[in-house]
Amino acid sequence: MGNSLFKVKYVVTCNESFQILHDAAIAVEDGVITYVGDKDKVPYSLGNFDYVFDIKGGVLIPGLVNCHVHAAMTLFKGVADDLPLKRWLEEVIWPLEDKLDSKSLIYGNYVAIMEMLSSGTTTFADFYFFDELIEAVKVIPIRTVATLPLLDKLPNSEKFWSRLKNVKSYEHKISEVPGGLISLALGPHAIYSCSEQLLREVLMVSDKYSIPVHMHVSETKYEFDLVKKEYGLSPVKYLDRLGLLNKRLFAAHCVYLDEGDVQLLSDRKVSCVHNPSSNLKLASGIMPLYDLLKKGVNVCLGTDGSASSNSLNLLSEMRLTVLLHRGVRLDPSFPTAKDALLMATLNGAKALGLDDKIGSIEVGKRADFVILDGRSLHLLPENNIVSNIVYSSSPSDVSYSVVDGRVLFENGKFVGLDSENVLSLFNELAVSIWKSRGG
Amino acid sequence: MGNSLFKVKYVVTCNESFQILHDAAIAVEDGVITYVGDKDKVPYSLGNFDYVFDIKGGVLIPGLVNCHVHAAMTLFKGVADDLPLKRWLEEVIWPLEDKLDSKSLIYGNYVAIMEMLSSGTTTFADFYFFDELIEAVKVIPIRTVATLPLLDKLPNSEKFWSRLKNVKSYEHKISEVPGGLISLALGPHAIYSCSEQLLREVLMVSDKYSIPVHMHVSETKYEFDLVKKEYGLSPVKYLDRLGLLNKRLFAAHCVYLDEGDVQLLSDRKVSCVHNPSSNLKLASGIMPLYDLLKKGVNVCLGTDGSASSNSLNLLSEMRLTVLLHRGVRLDPSFPTAKDALLMATLNGAKALGLDDKIGSIEVGKRADFVILDGRSLHLLPENNIVSNIVYSSSPSDVSYSVVDGRVLFENGKFVGLDSENVLSLFNELAVSIWKSRGG
Repeated sequence: MGNSLFKVKYVVTCNESFQILHDAAIAVEDGVITYVGDKDKVPYSLGNFDYVFDIKGGVLIPGLVNCHVHAAMTLFKGVADDLPLKRWLEEVIWPLEDKLDSKSLIYGNYVAIMEMLSSGTTTFADFYFFDELIEAVKVIPIRTVATLPLLDKLPNSEKFWSRLKNVKSYEHKISEVPGGLISLALGPHAIYSCSEQLLREVLMVSDKYSIPVHMHVSETKYEFDLVKKEYGLSPVKYLDRLGLLNKRLFAAHCVYLDEGDVQLLSDRKVSCVHNPSSNLKLASGIMPLYDLLKKGVNVCLGTDGSASSNSLNLLSEMRLTVLLHRGVRLDPSFPTAKDALLMATLNGAKALGLDDKIGSIEVGKRADFVILDGRSLHLLPENNIVSNIVYSSSPSDVSYSVVDGRVLFENGKFVGLDSENVLSLFNELAVSIWKSRGG
Repeated sequence: MGNSLFKVKYVVTCNESFQILHDAAIAVEDGVITYVGDKDKVPYSLGNFDYVFDIKGGVLIPGLVNCHVHAAMTLFKGVADDLPLKRWLEEVIWPLEDKLDSKSLIYGNYVAIMEMLSSGTTTFADFYFFDELIEAVKVIPIRTVATLPLLDKLPNSEKFWSRLKNVKSYEHKISEVPGGLISLALGPHAIYSCSEQLLREVLMVSDKYSIPVHMHVSETKYEFDLVKKEYGLSPVKYLDRLGLLNKRLFAAHCVYLDEGDVQLLSDRKVSCVHNPSSNLKLASGIMPLYDLLKKGVNVCLGTDGSASSNSLNLLSEMRLTVLLHRGVRLDPSFPTAKDALLMATLNGAKALGLDDKIGSIEVGKRADFVILDGRSLHLLPENNIVSNIVYSSSPSDVSYSVVDGRVLFENGKFVGLDSENVLSLFNELAVSIWKSRGG
């Protein structure tokens, strides 16, 4: 990997002081950022670089963090576009999942990872088939939180209990991927699919080994009503009763929140993952983002899987986040482009417990970053760089995606990958799964 | 221009029968589509082509039609991101407009047109500085409806009256652009900026010469309340009283509609232009799309100007249209991807009175079309082509944009244009206008 220097026109740091540096450079040594500053003042001791990238007009930002993805569901893009979540799952997705094999899942993951890298995402939290995710990340080394799905209330799901008993073996699997790129999360699927006993065991294991918990929480009105009926509590309060509301939980969706739920999420330091495209397309509803942010809850962004959102492009998710909440609340001052960029970077890193490593451009953090082409018409004129990134940019503006100091995507090409071949095989596999559904 | 054959993997016709043809071709002779069908059955008489484009994996659709744009406002992208419409106009936009000169406007138009062509738009209805628009279209021959802005209730705006008296001279200016690419529309700005007398005169001129009328209608609650207070009628009913509601009117926004307004718009065969990005970002509100479509109103799409929406990408406007209205109405079955694609093509052509010429892929229509790269990861897998176009595509997937049989954009390049130079000069001009604001 060696040492590299990246010279650019702008660096947007996305750290707490949120600086925009002009004519700047960052130095990377063994995967760590060792300098951020004026491109003409790189210290002499750092002067010996194996590689120097002098990127005219480059706009360098932290790699985006996608906190809720079912990556391999890219195989199902476009097959069930017009159904509400419950029917979408029960009538289309679950039956199709029975037809998946390892090869399809690995190729689904490859293409999902390619889509993310080429649209500026360098870290994602997956929630789907565990083993095939690890295989894919061995080939395309993107930073990943691999969630171990857990459930026991659906038919044939008792088998998932054994996963909890064998958490250490999953940590071992992860450790085989070099560079510490993958970390583990426990994934109790949702309240309606997990017994109370399972959820209590998840908490114990999470506490014992300090493992984050990734869960679908109050995604639909159906779920909210079901939980209220069964337990007499909102989903958030039910989880609090079990002790699961804590700083290790990153809760996807949080669309339906009851009186007091927002305060509780804030008090317990839970992170909430906003997935606007998926929530809108499935007509699940709209997260009360304003209330959450005003109460100081850490809110980050996710795309969900391409079976519901049809896209893993976090650039457009930032734009949608701003537009949606302005339009619904009729307030053009909230949220701002900066709010959205922080949600997609630093807040995401915090949610995944990775903010000591990633989420901002700072000395000492791992070198996960993206360079956009500031000479692209989308990023011109240069009157407001952050606005251009959030409202106007497009995947085609991503020139470089770098994970742990390694360039994985460069000017339209995936480094070391025969992408044409991967895409062609992926397409064959996905088409044949859909055709095999019969009926 | 000669005769050309375009062979592709899919053609999505977007005509009334909405066909998806596989392994198809279209033939173009002197700017007119003369064949649409099986790529191996092109009639012998059409066999002599000057150019044959054999585009592996190509997905051919009608060129998108953007029905409400202030193109040169691309100069103001990012400068007033967080204000409501009235303050945005009065405090930032109008003062900046005083600093515009012809050169800046022409370059603003160039870049706006480049952004549209590179994201699949081949026709747009502009509403801004007339002369500089014509100059830009002479250089980049995109199909254009040039609107003549008219108003007389703001300071120094009486001068616009003379435009109405000289409509014939504007038609003459337009006729200087070869190929009939530009057509004229009358643009009474809005009810709050136009006297009743001016609006009556607009109607007379529109009737006399059969010229379409392009107007901002009921964009904000402020406007709605103002008109109700002043005239005792909703904006729509006030326009109906003047006779302006008719099939030649395409009304931008239509966010605030009163009891009976939707029926009236339908009865009078008015077209409504939905601009979701702009309406959301300015927090103006949300058009009642469902009611309008259910009553049979012709609704098309627009991006508005980049000073409010920060993007002229109609591909993402289609996606946003579906997501927004599903989420707000909590109905995952409406609208569909097909609804959005029709709004961006055939409905747009109808709104502009151009559906005899463009808006669908049919023999006899002008050859305005776009070819997307179906081998791009965004357009795979191939299980649902229309869904992939609407939900998953990105400007980088546009391989060809063709207007009147002429290829204007091809694989990332603008044919015959030094785009690097244009963008660099545009950036300088836009930055210097913003810096000159003082204060």
